[in-house]
Order: sequence, then C-alpha cells, then structure tokens
Amino acid sequence: MSAAPQRGFGEAEYRHRLSRAQTMMAKAGLACLLLSTEPEVRYFTGYLTRFWESPARPWFLIVPAVGDPIAVIPSIGVALMSRSWIKDIRSWRSPDLQDDGVSLLRDALCEVAGTDGKIGVPSGLETHVRMPMHSWNALQQGLSIVDDAEIVVRLRKIKSQAEIAKIAQAGAIANLAFARVPEIAQAGVPLEKVFRHFQMLLLEEGADWVPYLAGAAGQDGYYDVISPATDAPLVQGDILMLDTGAVWDGYFCDFDRNFAVGAPSAIAQSGHSSLIEAVDAGMAAAKPGAMMCDLFHAMAGVVAGDSDAVANAGRLGHGLGMQLTEWPSIIPTDLTVLETGMVLTLEPSVETVDGRIMVHEENIAITETGAVFLNARSGRSLVSV
Amino acid sequence: MSAAPQRGFGEAEYRHRLSRAQTMMAKAGLACLLLSTEPEVRYFTGYLTRFWESPARPWFLIVPAVGDPIAVIPSIGVALMSRSWIKDIRSWRSPDLQDDGVSLLRDALCEVAGTDGKIGVPSGLETHVRMPMHSWNALQQGLSIVDDAEIVVRLRKIKSQAEIAKIAQAGAIANLAFARVPEIAQAGVPLEKVFRHFQMLLLEEGADWVPYLAGAAGQDGYYDVISPATDAPLVQGDILMLDTGAVWDGYFCDFDRNFAVGAPSAIAQSGHSSLIEAVDAGMAAAKPGAMMCDLFHAMAGVVAGDSDAVANAGRLGHGLGMQLTEWPSIIPTDLTVLETGMVLTLEPSVETVDGRIMVHEENIAITETGAVFLNARSGRSLVSV
Repeated sequence: MSAAPQRGFGEAEYRHRLSRAQTMMAKAGLACLLLSTEPEVRYFTGYLTRFWESPARPWFLIVPAVGDPIAVIPSIGVALMSRSWIKDIRSWRSPDLQDDGVSLLRDALCEVAGTDGKIGVPSGLETHVRMPMHSWNALQQGLSIVDDAEIVVRLRKIKSQAEIAKIAQAGAIANLAFARVPEIAQAGVPLEKVFRHFQMLLLEEGADWVPYLAGAAGQDGYYDVISPATDAPLVQGDILMLDTGAVWDGYFCDFDRNFAVGAPSAIAQSGHSSLIEAVDAGMAAAKPGAMMCDLFHAMAGVVAGDSDAVANAGRLGHGLGMQLTEWPSIIPTDLTVLETGMVLTLEPSVETVDGRIMVHEENIAITETGAVFLNARSGRSLVSV
Repeated sequence: MSAAPQRGFGEAEYRHRLSRAQTMMAKAGLACLLLSTEPEVRYFTGYLTRFWESPARPWFLIVPAVGDPIAVIPSIGVALMSRSWIKDIRSWRSPDLQDDGVSLLRDALCEVAGTDGKIGVPSGLETHVRMPMHSWNALQQGLSIVDDAEIVVRLRKIKSQAEIAKIAQAGAIANLAFARVPEIAQAGVPLEKVFRHFQMLLLEEGADWVPYLAGAAGQDGYYDVISPATDAPLVQGDILMLDTGAVWDGYFCDFDRNFAVGAPSAIAQSGHSSLIEAVDAGMAAAKPGAMMCDLFHAMAGVVAGDSDAVANAGRLGHGLGMQLTEWPSIIPTDLTVLETGMVLTLEPSVETVDGRIMVHEENIAITETGAVFLNARSGRSLVSV
C-alpha cells in the first residue's frame, strides 16, 4: 500500500464544488439548495462526524445561488463546523420541543430566497429529507420548495482525483484485510466470529470504521447477501462470502471476496470463473460515452442476469463514494452516460445450484479512455481457507 | 459477564407490540401505521440487517389496525424477511427508475385503509420519512396521511425485559473493552490509533459492530465530543474520553469513560468527581412518576448545566435502545413521566477550564421502585493510563 493520501480537502475543492453547483442553479432558476442529510452537508462543508448516528437532531445547509453556504445546525456541532471553511454558522440548542430549528431555518431561507425564490431540495431516488414530517410541513408553508434539478446527483457522481484517492485508500485497506481471511476463517469457526474478526482486521489495517459488513456461507453458494451472521460454524464445502464497506476519511470501498472452505468444488470454481469473466466483460464495456445499461448487458451476457435468483438483487452494480451505494445503477433501464471520474462497483451474481448464488464485486473508476480497478482485483482461482 | 441472552425475540414479543399498537390505533382512529425507517420496521418485524447503510432502496411496513403487518420491500430483502414472523410480504425489483415501490405501497395502503381511512406516519422529533420527496408527494395524493399520534414513540420508549437484557449485554461488552484501554492508550499514541484499537477491543469482547465511536483528548478537558480523531499523539496531562455506541443483536449501549494520561491533575479529578456526583443525583431522582426535567435539575444542580460550554450539548441524557439516542430528552422542558422499563443515559458535562469540558455518561433502566445501572458504573477516581 502506498502512502495514504492527505486527510480532508483544501478549501479550493469546496469552492470548486460550490461554483459548479451555482452554475447549475443559475440554469435551473433556483435561489438556493436546502440540504439535510450527512453526505449532502459534508459534500459542501467537509463536516465529518459519526454523530449523525443519533437521529435526535436535524442539520441543515443552505447553498445559495450567489455567495457562500450557510450552516443552520444544533449548537453541539458549532465547535466542529467552525473548523471547516464555512463562516456563516447559525445554531440553536437542540432538541427544542417547540421549534427544533424550523424558525431559524425559515429565516435563513427567506433571507437567501426572498418570498418567491425557488428552494431546491434533492428529491429523486436514493435521497430523503432528513427532518420530522411535522417540521417539514411547517417549513413549506409560504416557501417555494421544488426539486433540486438533480444538481446534487450530477455533482456527486463525478469524483475529483482527491476523492478517488480516498476510495482507493479504503480499497487498499480492505485488500490487506481480505488477504488475511485465512487467519480467521476455517472449518469449525462460527460465521459470527468470522464477521467480528474480519472487522478487526479492517481496523488493524487502517480503516477508520466499518459501517458495513455483510456476508454468508453455504454449500456451493448462499441464498442471500444481506443477512446478519449466525453462529453456525463453517463446514467443508461452504463458500464463504464477505462484503465490506470500510471507510477511510469519509469515503467507502465496497467489494467482496469469496473463499472455499476446503478444496473448492467444480461447481463453486465454475461459479467463480463466471463472475470473473463477467467483471472482464463489464470492464471492457466501461468507458466514457457508454451507458450504465451497456455494463448491465455486458455482464448479464455472461451470468444470465435475468434468472430469478440473480435478478432479485435488482442490479449488477452501482455508484460509490461518500456512501456505500450511490447513483447510478447498473440496470437495463439506466441510460446514464459514463463520464471520466465516475466510480462504480461491478457486482455480478450467478446462480450455482438450487437458488443458491455467488456474488462478486470490484470497484472501478472511469478514466479518459476506459476504466481502472481501484482495488487489487480477485484472482481467477477461488482461494481456499 | 454472565451468559449472553438469546438472540432475536419470540413471536410473542412481536404480537405483544402489535397488540399494544392496535389498541392505540383504535383510540386514535387510525386505519394503519406506515413505517419507513430501520428501527420502525425492525421493531414490529425483527428484520435485522446492516443493509440499510445503502440509501438506494426504500423499505415499508404497514401495521394495520386489525390483522398482521404487511411488508412492502425490495426483492433483495425477501429471503431475510421470510425468516421473520411476517407472512404478507410484497416486493418489487428495486431500484426502479419509474416507480420505486410507490404503486405497490399505495395499493397495499388502499387495501388496508380504504379511500378515507387515516394512515398514521411518525412525524415528531427524532423521526423522518425515509423515502424520496418525489415518491412521498406522489404517494400522498388521494390518501389521508396524518401523524401517528406518537404511537411508535409511546411503544418504543418502554422496553421489555428481553430488550433491556440486550442493552445490558452491549454495556457489559463495552465495560470489558473500557477496562482494557490502558493496553492501547498512553502518552505518544495518536488519537486516531486509539480510536481504531478501541473499536477492535469492542469487537474482540463480543460487539457485533460499532456504529458509533466519538471521543477527544486535551489538557484537563476537551472542546467538543463529536469530532473525528486526529493523528495528534496523547500527551501527559491530557484527559482522554471515549464514547461508544456498540451494538449487540441490534441494541445499543451508549456510555463513555474518561482517562488521565499520566497522573490526573487536581482540576481533572475535581471535574470527574462532580460528574460522578451529578450521576448520583440523577440516580436519586430516577424513579417512576418523576419527570425528565427532574433528572435535568437534579444533575444541573451539581454541574451548573446552564453554563454555555455545557449547555451547548443541549441535554444531559436521553433514551436508548434500538438507536444510539431515542426519546425522551433530559432537558428542562421535557415533562415526560418516567415509567418502569424506560432505558436512559445520564450524561452530565462540566466545564473544567477555559471552555474545555469533561462529559460522563452511564446507562440506566427505570425499575418499579427506582433505577438500576445497566453497565458497571465508573469509579470515583479518574483512571490513569
């Protein structure tokens, strides 16, 4: 693993994001953006804290069409926000049972948007408004709230080189942890112990934290990939899959590895080979100008993406960055055109036997001429433990 | 640590929750509840997965006034939901760019509520509706969506013995990890390394995962308690604070510990003693019939809860359970009456010097006659590392 990139970003990166947003706002006729979720607020401010785990307090950022962003946040966050590049920070003591920031937010919005300026709120797939319905309904009275013309999606789906370096760093850490799985997984070890120890390996190798770990184990495959671990011990013939979203400086990797417990069966090795071939096909199709649906068809041509057990996953990959999953999706209906700077997962799955599946995932970045792997990709032979 | 409680709950626990909800729904004149967030869905189903980390897909549960719940979920979750007690599971292949579950959800709601039945949605503090604004606006057309009469809050704030046992188990695990902090923290060790190693200790001692870790270090105190770790090394005279939300079987503990790097100064020991006394005062006031504001005044009487540096935190404790923080809040305006089965954190803070603070936190459960600590509480002397 090469030297870790610098933590954080310089103010220039945030100014560049702001400037791009403001160009788009002018085109869309928006007076400002109103943001309320962790990645939305962090994208424009750098405000990085695990405190969002608490649902108690709402947090807001106003990104005006002209001028610098305004943070409207609980007082508990002022010390940290003050260390960001944001200068206009307005706060209240939250929780306030009568008015949990709504008046303060409304005043700031009126100041920026006047009484008839359009306030854009992210409102498409994979977004939500993070504030109580009561507050939201009260806030909307007399304001002109519309969708954000997909400005946040359009910005975030193209990553800067500094962002890509952080995703690659998370991936390099996960690579080191995956290489050590034989230390913690063998026949007889309960799956829940493997899960706990794998998270420890990720932390030891340098992950800041491990927001996501899923996995499964079963004879020549598994039935789903989102269940928590049971205390059932691994047995010979199992395929063990571990899928992690480890974070470094606020950016995720998201990829998995399969391991054969004992010598791999012909069925399992064949499943693994198909998955590797599907990734090859996805990579061959991944370049600026191609569409997300092209990646789907390239991979589905190898792994029969329309079989029921496989299609239940809903897609064969997705965007990746400040969140474990981001837009766009590798599905037949997604016509998003690939651009330099997009970061994606390729995530084919294949049915091995009787509704059981194997899933494989790698992380890639779209370059000017094609795509590169952000993590060291899996070998063509299934690794035994 | 005594033997771990059983994982999961029997169907009887879910039927009891459903029955209480239905009694409240009858009183409030609601045809059903519509739930969309992780803890809301899990409370009635037991559906436990870290997959909610992905914002890509919406998930819904309808709890009807009569009859069993209906899950309306992406197909990727059907295998896991089918292992719960829920029988009526309706699914679609998500993400669907045209209609991501909205029609399916609307049909199910109309079936349960008719065209004029009231659909209750959690809408007060600490809640949000987890679906895109576009979908939410489309769904509301022609349906009668109102607030849930605080039914979900009223149910969740009283924990069963089985729930309390899981919170206590998470606390017992954190106690073991805190006891080992001297192994990982001493002068010269960067704070970010302490953070990574403390998470490893929590996992090694049995945590399923570590959704939350905050902390700080500074001479005789720190400026805030929600910042990520820096690579600054601990130095003699620092107070190191670690605050964890570790999870066991879907339930959180949430408490912290302070450590003196080297021999504690008189200022730091005095701060620690005040915090311990504040917890004593909080415990003395904690019994059925008392109000949350009584706990505030009891603790603030010791630690001057109205000083600016302290009051910025906004409260001196909160509910705890399936989430790191839950209702109610220990603030002067919260008149919630304590009842047997409530689980709370007592979280006083004290200003030590020049705007620097120390924060201390313990987890308690309200019993029939008073309150008990759910974790082994801190000693009266500050521990040195």
